[in-house]
Amino acid sequence: MHRPPIKFCKQCGSAVVYRIPDDGDTKLRAVCPACHTIHYENPLNVVGTVPCWGDKVLLCKRNIEPRFGLWTLPAGFMELNETTAEGAARETVEEAGAQFVMQELFTLVNVARVGQVHLFYRAQLTSDQFDPGTETIEARLFLESEIPWEEIAFRTTRVTLEQFFADRSKGEFGMHHIDV
Amino acid sequence: MHRPPIKFCKQCGSAVVYRIPDDGDTKLRAVCPACHTIHYENPLNVVGTVPCWGDKVLLCKRNIEPRFGLWTLPAGFMELNETTAEGAARETVEEAGAQFVMQELFTLVNVARVGQVHLFYRAQLTSDQFDPGTETIEARLFLESEIPWEEIAFRTTRVTLEQFFADRSKGEFGMHHIDV
Repeated sequence: MHRPPIKFCKQCGSAVVYRIPDDGDTKLRAVCPACHTIHYENPLNVVGTVPCWGDKVLLCKRNIEPRFGLWTLPAGFMELNETTAEGAARETVEEAGAQFVMQELFTLVNVARVGQVHLFYRAQLTSDQFDPGTETIEARLFLESEIPWEEIAFRTTRVTLEQFFADRSKGEFGMHHIDV
Repeated sequence: MHRPPIKFCKQCGSAVVYRIPDDGDTKLRAVCPACHTIHYENPLNVVGTVPCWGDKVLLCKRNIEPRFGLWTLPAGFMELNETTAEGAARETVEEAGAQFVMQELFTLVNVARVGQVHLFYRAQLTSDQFDPGTETIEARLFLESEIPWEEIAFRTTRVTLEQFFADRSKGEFGMHHIDV
């Protein structure tokens, strides 16, 4: 994800400077020399689901960049005023138009180099009919043997799917903490 | 947490307007009419630990607002370029000057009304000597019977401590997903 440096103060519009604030902080922050606002930049959460229908898993073919045309689990940036599970459910509706029951948290995947934490929940589909939104070319169910491993959009999706099939073969789903 | 509205574009300094972007988004965003930057506002992660020494748990008495003088588990905002566990360990060093071994993720607590997700890891202290930083008045070990429940700073700390003692009495620690 592209995060350009902050150039101007969001509160007063003055040009900011990057320096260590005087409040005991130890990190460089964009500080406003006029109104003294400190602009913190923090990691973002990406929330999504592993939606299942019998032996099959739902993937979405991306209609947007990055990774246009590649396959992913339904997921997106968590918004204000929602919980992690609510955000994961919202993205599953938006990207796949799926009907489902939310289940347990399945993976927490740290992607520190881009400042993201990905959280995937298992979800039980209640229909095999989908109505994907504009961000998705196609929403489709895959058997494990059909997963297009060479066309998976993101590493977080890949490790979550790998863990899902590993757990399923053991007959027990855990909660997995992964750094990629 | 106070999140004032964005008034000026962080890229070009122009006054922003709050509107729904033209890219298929459905939410109001601060959009720059000059350079077209969209300013997203997303939840923040707070990461911390439940540090244990025998039957005791380490709490820190806050030397900063909010909740100055009240007790909390060591925790703070996750930074860029770290994982959730690395952030939790960093905060435990900064706030308590503790020595410890990190253990499993213990709670994920959604605080949707303030746009936060709190993640607490269990940690095994390797010393009962602490060297708290400037954000902490005192770092001290408490037996369950000594926990100052009326002086706990945050609800996320409270539910995490309650779950910790409940799990300990059962002899098994799980991973708990809580909305407060």
